[in-house]
Amino acid sequence: VTWEVLAFDFGGTKARCALVSRDGRLGPTRAQGRPPSADGPRWLARMLDEGRGLLAEAGPGAPRAVGVSFGGPVDDEGRVSSMHVAGWEKVDLRRSMREAFGLPCLVDNDANLGALGEQRFGAGRDTAHLAYFTVSTGVGGGVVLQGKVHRGAHGIAGEFGHIPFRPFDLAAPECACGKRGCVESLASGRAIAREGRRALAAVGRPAPDDLTAEQVFAAAGRDETWALGVRDRAVEALAHGVASVLCVLDLPVVVIGGGVAQAGELLLGPLRGRVEDALPEVLRGRSQVRQAALGDFSSLLGAAALAMED
Amino acid sequence: VTWEVLAFDFGGTKARCALVSRDGRLGPTRAQGRPPSADGPRWLARMLDEGRGLLAEAGPGAPRAVGVSFGGPVDDEGRVSSMHVAGWEKVDLRRSMREAFGLPCLVDNDANLGALGEQRFGAGRDTAHLAYFTVSTGVGGGVVLQGKVHRGAHGIAGEFGHIPFRPFDLAAPECACGKRGCVESLASGRAIAREGRRALAAVGRPAPDDLTAEQVFAAAGRDETWALGVRDRAVEALAHGVASVLCVLDLPVVVIGGGVAQAGELLLGPLRGRVEDALPEVLRGRSQVRQAALGDFSSLLGAAALAMED
Repeated sequence: VTWEVLAFDFGGTKARCALVSRDGRLGPTRAQGRPPSADGPRWLARMLDEGRGLLAEAGPGAPRAVGVSFGGPVDDEGRVSSMHVAGWEKVDLRRSMREAFGLPCLVDNDANLGALGEQRFGAGRDTAHLAYFTVSTGVGGGVVLQGKVHRGAHGIAGEFGHIPFRPFDLAAPECACGKRGCVESLASGRAIAREGRRALAAVGRPAPDDLTAEQVFAAAGRDETWALGVRDRAVEALAHGVASVLCVLDLPVVVIGGGVAQAGELLLGPLRGRVEDALPEVLRGRSQVRQAALGDFSSLLGAAALAMED
Repeated sequence: VTWEVLAFDFGGTKARCALVSRDGRLGPTRAQGRPPSADGPRWLARMLDEGRGLLAEAGPGAPRAVGVSFGGPVDDEGRVSSMHVAGWEKVDLRRSMREAFGLPCLVDNDANLGALGEQRFGAGRDTAHLAYFTVSTGVGGGVVLQGKVHRGAHGIAGEFGHIPFRPFDLAAPECACGKRGCVESLASGRAIAREGRRALAAVGRPAPDDLTAEQVFAAAGRDETWALGVRDRAVEALAHGVASVLCVLDLPVVVIGGGVAQAGELLLGPLRGRVEDALPEVLRGRSQVRQAALGDFSSLLGAAALAMED
């Protein structure tokens, strides 16, 4: 196997790097947790060392490019562009990679690259156009058109979590973005856990503070009524987001990834039905809603695909 | 002036054709109302005659291509693809034009070509990417990315009128698409007229059956409370649509056209404010909402732009 590119993925708590072949096969992989100080440059330096280790291990016929997925906004030049990611202010990822490896480097955010990874190597291999929803702690997304990430005018296309859903419903939760009733505020892993605690308390059962969305889906899988209700309300919000995206772009495929999508058909089954309900007649039965195929590796493999484009 | 293309625009009640120069200048133009029988092929034949008349008038140096805008869905081959437009079933517009004029011909629907016309020659001349909302009897739209219409997987991208807005609000009107509370059901010219009649009746004033959205905006311009309320509720629905599109695509410009947009700042002023309210913080203050610049000619000039691409 020829390892075509070296790919990095910096998430909220974990960073990984891996060698990847032309056809998306994952080679040797290394990981590092976030240092306790949450200092971006120090974490980056450790990951550059891991990358050097991978290259030394792989021997001659080294990769020809580097791709980086970052868990937050990056600008067109590959620099972290937001103050929102503590410890990473203004870090120039592209330049750091170029200096460390002497190779060209491309960088994008994890949601955009999750979309590209699924399109190139995952659930959307048969199409050049898709939307990718990542449903984990929050809800994000990315759009791939003609095999390329659509970044938008400011690199923030695919803000599917903040598509307004119930902005005027005073019973809807406030969202981190400053609005009320966004898709994310009702369909994210955090929201599902919160609503799960509420639903348990409402039926007089213990509602552990550390309840997870995974546990809510497990209970839904056991047909527990409280959990089915929570699941169905999250699905309704997510379906609103998916239907809105389809009204705008008329895409053949929508891929649902992120930790919450690991629930599989417990999420995807009802979601498909509610998306159809939320679509106008002219769009019904035309698009497929699929589970992500690359699990935790959508963004890393998307970073690899991006580097291969160069 | 060299008349580069011959452009046609078939609307609901009126068809036009015109010669158009490379830089979007409108030359001689002819129009025909819909024949009483609503027979597509007969109307088409009359318009082909009008086109021949224009060419004869223009003399040598004839156009090199034909572009057609049609007020309903057309397939990738330039054929009317819907049963929804009475009298036009399966009419092959592209082939008819080729046979009549011996020139290459491209066809798309009026909303997509309104978007392209505004991008090439109108309110979006300074950008390669925009969304165009057409607000007239209904609400439609089109998306232009990198200077090309994004038609979507089935040629029906830009269904902005059917983005769900208040699908669970039982007080929201039913929409022609079979759902409830779509953007169109609250923001279209038809909806504004309907809500205007209701609002007048509610304050005990005469509510004429033939009240128009234009009259509602005129009354809003005179600060009549009933009309301001109707206007603001329509603006809220339209802002929801615009914000949803921006969350998906992060576009630099959104253009609002169609008959209702003739209200100008009476519509656009409050719309800009409500769009900002409906956006997540990360997208606020970044995109411009502009009135269409080509008035009733967005789609015709879009058809011209499409023909020039060939």
